[in-house]
Amino acid sequence: QFLMDMIDTTTELGKGMISMYQKYDALRFSGYIQPQFQMAQARGASSYAGGDFPPAVDNRFMLRRGRIRVDYERYNKDNMPLVQFAFQFDGTERGVFIRDFYGRFFETKFNVLSLAAGMFARPFGYEVNLSSADRETPERGRMSQILMKTERDMGAMVSFEPRRKDHPLSFLKIDAGLFNGQGLTGPNDFDSHKDFIGRIAIKPCKIRGTNYLLSAGVSILYGGMEQFTQYINTMGTVNGKPGYTVDSAAGNVGKIAPRHYFGADIQLKIPNGPGKGSTQFRAEYIRGKQTATALTTETPGIIPLTPQGKPQPLYIRNFDGAYLYFLQNLGSDKHQVVVKYDWYDPNKDVKGKDIGMPGAGLTAADIRYNTLGVGYLYYANEHLKFMFYYDWVTNESTELEGYKKDLKDNVLTCRIQYRF
Amino acid sequence: QFLMDMIDTTTELGKGMISMYQKYDALRFSGYIQPQFQMAQARGASSYAGGDFPPAVDNRFMLRRGRIRVDYERYNKDNMPLVQFAFQFDGTERGVFIRDFYGRFFETKFNVLSLAAGMFARPFGYEVNLSSADRETPERGRMSQILMKTERDMGAMVSFEPRRKDHPLSFLKIDAGLFNGQGLTGPNDFDSHKDFIGRIAIKPCKIRGTNYLLSAGVSILYGGMEQFTQYINTMGTVNGKPGYTVDSAAGNVGKIAPRHYFGADIQLKIPNGPGKGSTQFRAEYIRGKQTATALTTETPGIIPLTPQGKPQPLYIRNFDGAYLYFLQNLGSDKHQVVVKYDWYDPNKDVKGKDIGMPGAGLTAADIRYNTLGVGYLYYANEHLKFMFYYDWVTNESTELEGYKKDLKDNVLTCRIQYRF
Amino acid sequence: QFLMDMIDTTTELGKGMISMYQKYDALRFSGYIQPQFQMAQARGASSYAGGDFPPAVDNRFMLRRGRIRVDYERYNKDNMPLVQFAFQFDGTERGVFIRDFYGRFFETKFNVLSLAAGMFARPFGYEVNLSSADRETPERGRMSQILMKTERDMGAMVSFEPRRKDHPLSFLKIDAGLFNGQGLTGPNDFDSHKDFIGRIAIKPCKIRGTNYLLSAGVSILYGGMEQFTQYINTMGTVNGKPGYTVDSAAGNVGKIAPRHYFGADIQLKIPNGPGKGSTQFRAEYIRGKQTATALTTETPGIIPLTPQGKPQPLYIRNFDGAYLYFLQNLGSDKHQVVVKYDWYDPNKDVKGKDIGMPGAGLTAADIRYNTLGVGYLYYANEHLKFMFYYDWVTNESTELEGYKKDLKDNVLTCRIQYRF
Repeated sequence: QFLMDMIDTTTELGKGMISMYQKYDALRFSGYIQPQFQMAQARGASSYAGGDFPPAVDNRFMLRRGRIRVDYERYNKDNMPLVQFAFQFDGTERGVFIRDFYGRFFETKFNVLSLAAGMFARPFGYEVNLSSADRETPERGRMSQILMKTERDMGAMVSFEPRRKDHPLSFLKIDAGLFNGQGLTGPNDFDSHKDFIGRIAIKPCKIRGTNYLLSAGVSILYGGMEQFTQYINTMGTVNGKPGYTVDSAAGNVGKIAPRHYFGADIQLKIPNGPGKGSTQFRAEYIRGKQTATALTTETPGIIPLTPQGKPQPLYIRNFDGAYLYFLQNLGSDKHQVVVKYDWYDPNKDVKGKDIGMPGAGLTAADIRYNTLGVGYLYYANEHLKFMFYYDWVTNESTELEGYKKDLKDNVLTCRIQYRF
Repeated sequence: QFLMDMIDTTTELGKGMISMYQKYDALRFSGYIQPQFQMAQARGASSYAGGDFPPAVDNRFMLRRGRIRVDYERYNKDNMPLVQFAFQFDGTERGVFIRDFYGRFFETKFNVLSLAAGMFARPFGYEVNLSSADRETPERGRMSQILMKTERDMGAMVSFEPRRKDHPLSFLKIDAGLFNGQGLTGPNDFDSHKDFIGRIAIKPCKIRGTNYLLSAGVSILYGGMEQFTQYINTMGTVNGKPGYTVDSAAGNVGKIAPRHYFGADIQLKIPNGPGKGSTQFRAEYIRGKQTATALTTETPGIIPLTPQGKPQPLYIRNFDGAYLYFLQNLGSDKHQVVVKYDWYDPNKDVKGKDIGMPGAGLTAADIRYNTLGVGYLYYANEHLKFMFYYDWVTNESTELEGYKKDLKDNVLTCRIQYRF
Repeated sequence: QFLMDMIDTTTELGKGMISMYQKYDALRFSGYIQPQFQMAQARGASSYAGGDFPPAVDNRFMLRRGRIRVDYERYNKDNMPLVQFAFQFDGTERGVFIRDFYGRFFETKFNVLSLAAGMFARPFGYEVNLSSADRETPERGRMSQILMKTERDMGAMVSFEPRRKDHPLSFLKIDAGLFNGQGLTGPNDFDSHKDFIGRIAIKPCKIRGTNYLLSAGVSILYGGMEQFTQYINTMGTVNGKPGYTVDSAAGNVGKIAPRHYFGADIQLKIPNGPGKGSTQFRAEYIRGKQTATALTTETPGIIPLTPQGKPQPLYIRNFDGAYLYFLQNLGSDKHQVVVKYDWYDPNKDVKGKDIGMPGAGLTAADIRYNTLGVGYLYYANEHLKFMFYYDWVTNESTELEGYKKDLKDNVLTCRIQYRF
């Protein structure tokens, strides 16, 4: 009797259940919220730890990120992916914006190639592609934020990544794509030039005779922006010292100013034993040429204009930067410390006290910053993470008013992450 | 034994499963993403194929649409709908906005009437109500975009549509509603006048003795906007030629300027055989009176003001326009070609070289445009569609500076659509 | 045979079903849409019933609220909550914004404490914390909207609320938290000062010998805002009458101006019998000190500046206000009438005709308003609610130009609520 009841119930609900299964099986919802409390060393501190503090503020609550994401994936009979797409929104007190909004489809003959199109993370480097929900530090390094703000760009990309485990090149992933260039920092492309971005990566492989996992990659961004101004500044010599010299040929207008980045990254993970977590090292180095303006080296999202509405002169700088991570679990998967050191030198052709020399045209945008971050993370459960993190930010001492010594811009971040 | 295991499993999960079923059964998620790459004939081309190209741009990646939608529907025991509502967001690099946000409830005595309220597509014509995910062309015609930008408006509508298959009028659908008028182009209604919109449509019916499907409809929009200016321009005669004459009676302020559209549409579908798709023809013609300003005929979303903040003079024009579709599958459901011709004549009372005559007050907004579009579509699977489409846009040759011959504004669109 | 089919089906789908169950069990979607039609007594009426009417508008369709919400909750083996979080968006023709975006985690030793962080409703009073989907009136009172616009603020809060039914203090709920202060009316905190908010509430308890349910609470908001101006106005005597006197000590800059609210609320519910609904009474009174500017008493969301960009002088006022609800079902759960009376006196130190005296500096922001609202609600089903509501808004008669008698600002609201 009981048996028949069960089955009757099943019968009654059966069709509905199966129809629901088909509706929801390929669909996945996920999201995370990162409320945080921060204290800066001084009111109005400039910061890449969640944005500058307003002039009268040295402590604040904020929603750093509020993400909600819908993924849809379909597989064929061989369990190989056919199509995949993602919708991700970011909602905070500052507004609601898109993050990832892209689709990808897969060839299913060799199961090695795919094509993605839409808004997605630039395939450059390791840090840019590591999700903020997984990262062990509150923010990406200053360099990543300046060169590739919000990480994503609008474009199309071909990927080579064997999807069968037994493929001889299954350790390899190659991405190559074309992108507008401005990413999410502007509402649309402002020139006709596209950025090429490519990356070759080796996925985590066991080092022979150990259980160490090693991964690495090299990346290139070879792009640029149209010059709407004839005034193009590059580093030269002014009064025997480094300084900007301007090329003001009328023919400069319409040419492409370079945005050329070259990067390499490596990650090593040493398991500490079951339930004990791991020791990890990560390093990434990027150098190249960046085009921006006198007062910032951020990649422009719109055509840079003066307050009078004329195109701003452009500045082309040789930059480099890097970060180093050391991660150590404290005898448990739940407790982890992180030490991170990163630098960004926006202008490799000038150092310290030469910035601020009269007539050289150098500004605060040419100052190198080093950041040492130390953090403790507690993973309460798979949905809940606590992070306490302190950033020591050090700038070069220059001759520039306001930047003669180290600024008071260290920041303490206390963050809770809710995730599903 | 195996049987009992099954049942135990069922028992254990049973309650949860049933509760989940009840939570999700009435709910439906859907969405689509349309990344595209476009090339225009010239930099800075004005375009209704996804918006004007910025001044320095003749090629671009963009997310044309990124839609995510939640539907909720409840039925009664007779499987007749009780209530239905929809939440739809559009997210792109240009921001996050609502699209459909409305509810509808149904009377269940005769099961023929329903009332919808909120933000939803104006019940006018065929193209305005055909989803962008289903349309075989990248965009609606120029006329639709100018008269009813973003299609939707805020209002309430009664619909007559028999929901029982055996109802003698089950082939009929009648909509009649009142709407603010500004739709999604403004943050709220700017006058107290409402637009009436109505439509009578015959749903696809088999033509006797064939398997051809024919559908058709007639529509009316009878609305207007308050005149905040006393300067009301209509077409008359200036120096013996067509031109604007102004009525500047002080009493014009506060009266209602007309927005009157009359339309008819017809669709014919000829199946080509199982798996071979179909041949389709569609036509729609609209004419009427539109009120806008000197330089545009777009329906205003806010009170049109001069840069000095005064109300702009209004221009009332007789317009007409139409589109014709020819759709043909290429021996397969997967391959399809589309040819579309549309025109929009914003001012029927003047032609070509008369535009640009000194003193007539005619502008670029009075020029007729014809567009011929040819496209190829590949439906890879139910989630993936590729579209290649070329628009030949032709404007009248006028005496107006910059519009003396056909502009270089043809556009090639390559689009991928991901949909679930 | 049939049995075996079922089981085969079950077996086949089993894994998928269980995996889906795990994905969706903790997740909950909900939402509501409130389209409405409103008529005001005069064009351009100022209103707290959905915002001011534009100058030429005395009737309008609008989406008052369009909410979609995702909740995620996890429980431990004892069925006690571990973690809970909420994402809520508001989408209307005016844009897409966040509402609730917060997480909460629970200690599971005593199951009495929890900590919430993010953007959530201020724990002050009854009306502020009652959802707009449940409220029997279209809007919160004028006082709530002025003091705590959009209800929510960014912060962290500890709550004491026993989660076991048999806990001796299970009738009690205590909240205490720190908040930025500006809520959703500004993009970030503009000073370093935080608001403390606390509330002690008694949950609905049966009155001995009856089935009446009584609940009550007391609340405090003890905060403030930094003074960026040296001009601080408080009520004193001007020409023998009440008026503002200014303290312009240079040392005022940087001090904290008070935002101190003290409130008490009580609710009584008298069941009318099965299926007959209830009779309800609710009352809430708040008084305190509010800091704002000359022309408004709304809590500032950004630093109040003059058109020239200088900090505006601040005005500190003693205010009070209250609301009273009477709710009565009409012999059925489906029909309900509501009568609500509320007042807000932004400045208790001045009355009527003293406002407008030359030299006193009093403005329209100092005028007391009383509002009497009468409404009828029809609950068609659990997803559909109709509301017809009329607001008689009465202002004090003053000597101020434009406020010498009662303004024509009564509003009729006809609303449909779709909810799931």
